[in-house]
Formats: sequence, C-alpha cells, structure tokens
Amino acid sequence: MHPSTASRSLAEQPVRISAATVARVREAARTLGYRRDASAAALRTGSSRLVGVLVHRLTDLALATMYAGADAAAAEAGYNTVVANGLDDPQVRRDRLEALLARRIDGVILADARSDDTLADHLAALGVPYVLAMRTLPGHLSVGTDDVEGGRLAAEHLLELGHRRVAVAAGDPLASTGHDRTAGFRQAFAEAGHPVPDDAVAATGFGVAAGHAAGNRLAALDPAPSAVFAVDDLTAVGVIGALRDAGRTVGSDVALVGYNDVELAADLPVGLTSVRSDRDRMGRLAFGLLLERIAGRDVASARLPPVLVPRASTLGAVPPG
Amino acid sequence: MHPSTASRSLAEQPVRISAATVARVREAARTLGYRRDASAAALRTGSSRLVGVLVHRLTDLALATMYAGADAAAAEAGYNTVVANGLDDPQVRRDRLEALLARRIDGVILADARSDDTLADHLAALGVPYVLAMRTLPGHLSVGTDDVEGGRLAAEHLLELGHRRVAVAAGDPLASTGHDRTAGFRQAFAEAGHPVPDDAVAATGFGVAAGHAAGNRLAALDPAPSAVFAVDDLTAVGVIGALRDAGRTVGSDVALVGYNDVELAADLPVGLTSVRSDRDRMGRLAFGLLLERIAGRDVASARLPPVLVPRASTLGAVPPG
Repeated sequence: MHPSTASRSLAEQPVRISAATVARVREAARTLGYRRDASAAALRTGSSRLVGVLVHRLTDLALATMYAGADAAAAEAGYNTVVANGLDDPQVRRDRLEALLARRIDGVILADARSDDTLADHLAALGVPYVLAMRTLPGHLSVGTDDVEGGRLAAEHLLELGHRRVAVAAGDPLASTGHDRTAGFRQAFAEAGHPVPDDAVAATGFGVAAGHAAGNRLAALDPAPSAVFAVDDLTAVGVIGALRDAGRTVGSDVALVGYNDVELAADLPVGLTSVRSDRDRMGRLAFGLLLERIAGRDVASARLPPVLVPRASTLGAVPPG
Repeated sequence: MHPSTASRSLAEQPVRISAATVARVREAARTLGYRRDASAAALRTGSSRLVGVLVHRLTDLALATMYAGADAAAAEAGYNTVVANGLDDPQVRRDRLEALLARRIDGVILADARSDDTLADHLAALGVPYVLAMRTLPGHLSVGTDDVEGGRLAAEHLLELGHRRVAVAAGDPLASTGHDRTAGFRQAFAEAGHPVPDDAVAATGFGVAAGHAAGNRLAALDPAPSAVFAVDDLTAVGVIGALRDAGRTVGSDVALVGYNDVELAADLPVGLTSVRSDRDRMGRLAFGLLLERIAGRDVASARLPPVLVPRASTLGAVPPG
C-alpha cells in the first residue's frame, strides 16, 4: 500500500479511497497502538478543529448551559472547545485570547462581549472567524435572546398584576443582556405612564453577591417598591437574600421576576417567576454559525424569543403598590 | 543573527541568550506580525501545554468553581485547559478522552471518576499524567474534601439539635462524594444509636431535578423525618422544591443540610446550612499536583478539611423528631 493511501485513510474525512481500505488501515493503526496526532494534523491541514469559547466565568449558570450546548454541538462535529475565563477583566481577556490564537484555533465564540471593549473588532481585524453568543454588539454576528422583548414581558406581567412602583436589579449595563433587559422593562413601564426612576435601578453587576448588593440598595428605597425585576436568576437569588435580611419576604411582601429560568428557579421555596431563554439552543446555534463562518459563508445573526414563566414569586399574595 | 538564536529567543522559556537579544527578537517578531505557533511547538517540544479536564457537566456549580481554580492556576503557569463534558456516560467519556489524547495534552484532571469505571486505570496504563479532583478512587492520585468527615459534621450538627429520625438525599453512590458523605453521616447516626434505615436514603443522583425526585420519595416516608441531609447544595434545592410541593417548609417544618456551600446557599429565603469545601483551592491544588506528575515527580493525594456553616435551615424553629 502506498504511504499516502494509509495517510488519507487515517484522516478524519478520508477522500477518494474505498471504505474497505479505510477500515483496514484504521484497524491496523489501532492494533499497532497509533493515535491521530492533532498537532501534526493542525500543521498540515491548517485546521486544529479547536474552537475557543471566551466567557467571564462558568459559575454563571446561564452561561454554563449555553456553553454545554455549544460544546455538545462541537463534539458532534469532531471539534473540541477550549474555554477561556476572562473574569470581565480587559487585560485577562486579551491575554487569554492571545493564548487561544497561538493554538491555531479555527474560531471563537465570544460570550463575554461588552460595549466598552474592542475584542470583537480585534478578531474581525485579524480575520479570525467568530460569533458572539449571549451578549451581542451592533455590527457583529451574534446569537442571543431578544432581551428588549424579554424585559418588556417582565414589565407587562407586573403591570397586569397591578404593580406601579417597581425597581430593577440591572446587572452590568455594559453587557447587552443587562442593558437591553433593563431598557425593555423601563420602556414598557414608561409607556404605561409609570416610568421607573433612576434611583430605583441598581446596576451592580451579575451574580449572587452583586444581586445582594442591589437588593440592599433597593430595600432602602422610600417608598418601597412592590416588585423587583432582576435581569438574571442568580442576581435574583442575591436580591432575595438582601430583602430577607431587611425583613421583607419575596412572594408575600414583594414580587420578584428573574431572567433565564435556570433549573433551580422552579424549586426555590417560593418558585421564581422568570423569563426563559433556550440557552442550550443558543449554544448549538452559535457553534453552527461559527462553522459556517469557518467555511467562509455569510450568515445572519439570530435572536431567540423569550417566554415568561409565571410562578409564586409574582402570583403569590403580593399587594401591588 | 543565527536562526537558532531567534528561535530560542521566541520560545516561552528562552535559555542561554541575553535578555536584550530576547527582547529584540520578540519585538521584531511582533512588528512582523508573527505569533508563536502552539501546534508547531507541541510537535517540537512534545509538550502542548494543554491540560484536559474531564467533568460530568459544568452546570454543576460546585464543579464549576473547582474548574475555575484549576483553570486560573493553569493560566498562571502558561497552560490552557480543554474541558470535556462526559455527561456521566461511559461511551461519551471514552470518546472525549480519546479526542483529548489526540491533541497531545500534557495531562488530565479527572473530575468525574466513578467506582464502576476504568478511565483512571486506562490513563495509568497509557502513562498519561493525571490527577483525580473532587471525586476520588482508591489507588489513584487525587485531591478532594474529606467527605466522610463532612457527612459526619452534618450528622453531629443535627444530633446536637435533637434530631433522631432523619433522611438522606444521597446523590450518586458510585461517585465518592455521594458515597462518602452518606457513609460518614450514617456512621455518626448509627454510633449515636439512631441508625438511618435504608428506605430513608434516596440515591437519585446530583442536581436540582435529582434532588426533587429524592425529595418526593422522602416526603412520602411515614413517620416523616424531621431533618434531611442532601449531599450537594443544588440537590438540596430540589429537595426544598419537592418538600414545598408536599406542603412542608424547610426551616420551620423540616431541617435541611446541604453540601459544598455554593454562593447561593446563604441567600436562599431560608439560608441553607451547608458543609463548606474550598473548591477554588481544590482546583489549584489539582493543577499543581498534575504539573508535578508531568515533571515526573511523585506526589501524595490531598484531602481538604470540611467546615459546617450553620444557617436558618437547621437553626430555625424545626421541632426535632
């Protein structure tokens, strides 16, 4: 057998060789203990079949679910994902991206975009295929939820229940998720004739600790809001803890709406009303679009529709105010 | 300048060349737009500076924190981590490991070991450096919490509060975490003269949905337990939801102890008593031990001490039974 026949038989997508030959060569290689060497293959084909995923941190449950979807789709396509935790720190993000590029990754899923940074522009300038996921930026290919609509759904739900004096735990306004969800919510309340004042919007960041800080500020408002919208479920848990410490019980004294509908929302002592986004699908879509970009094809951004899931945190006997 | 001087100047740890020369060559390379090629470096040095991390899924909050610690330590040492989500499925795990090995990873952090599988033996047989994290197996290098002691701490806390009829949401008994925490808990209750009957131990797996299933079973016990030990905090949240659906309130009708002390435990409406393990440190230690193994040095397994953090879920007015 000619060496190049064996070589082509061992490639991941063998061409112009009969299936029987491929099977025979692969079996022989397996018997001899050979394993495909991805480093050598990357040098020869120019493709590492590695995709970088930039996140702020994977302890963000919503992000971890999106990542799981992207990773599953990648595995099905014969790719591996390399995660880089940017910690929302510009220097760390740039360093981690450089480390990924040194690995000849085929493309990047950027899940930690912020309106104050230039990493997406940098990738575009380098000609590295990329797609933004979860957080979007104008002018860049992205997969996200329609977060303005999601914020609006939360507002309409609270308006229907009679709430007029409301507050927002707004996350990070430099992330499109925090910005758009807050904007949609405030728009709907303003249109209904009950604008949300600036001091009732606490933009302290995402996560339990940030939510607790937001809850502390919102608990001090006078008059007290009868309902709070937290732009992320873990942020909502922090709000719950802070309000509890201030002597107020979510679901009876004050209504609360979260966002993402992470798995634990339904099992909290008072089930958390939340705006659901299909993050597994978001991750799969993001990887699919990235593959298209790697193949040099033009594709359009995608927005998934949000759905409000009402539970006891708003449906309980909270007197609207 | 001799080509090999330039080559050595661009290596990550240049040797026998003056710092001035190194800086000059690197600056020239940067100006010309060159970037270190990790694939080529891997072929030449035999080291990819990639480390694989096998997990069951990163939506497990405790695991995500451990991973973050390992990844931070890896980044500090000039390594990248490649995560592989094994989903606790033997075939998926084996496939993902093969994909990692094809990338010439320098070593593996195995965070999803189970007593019914042979992946750790397989790595040992291949001579691939590895360390188990979170879940341990006899005869393999590992970093974990002393989970027997952790289960014992939970039991002693409940015994002190007067509880005698207790139940366990035991997670996965094939994972050392589920097994050891349950064993330590039952040992302590047995030694105190109040053995936990088998039908009060629901081994339904880890996570919110599994915890909800365990809670459903434990809620049907007659007589009802006055306290429940869940071997993992997200599992505990599922128990909370199931007991709530059965009309019982954690913290007033029934006491609950979780495990891991994830960030959200403190901010639940009724703060969750939990057994804390320092998972950031666990991840950093795991990567440190792996580096030693990669360097061919012998190292010993490490066990971190667990600490009980009491909160309202046990300190509330729960009548012991």
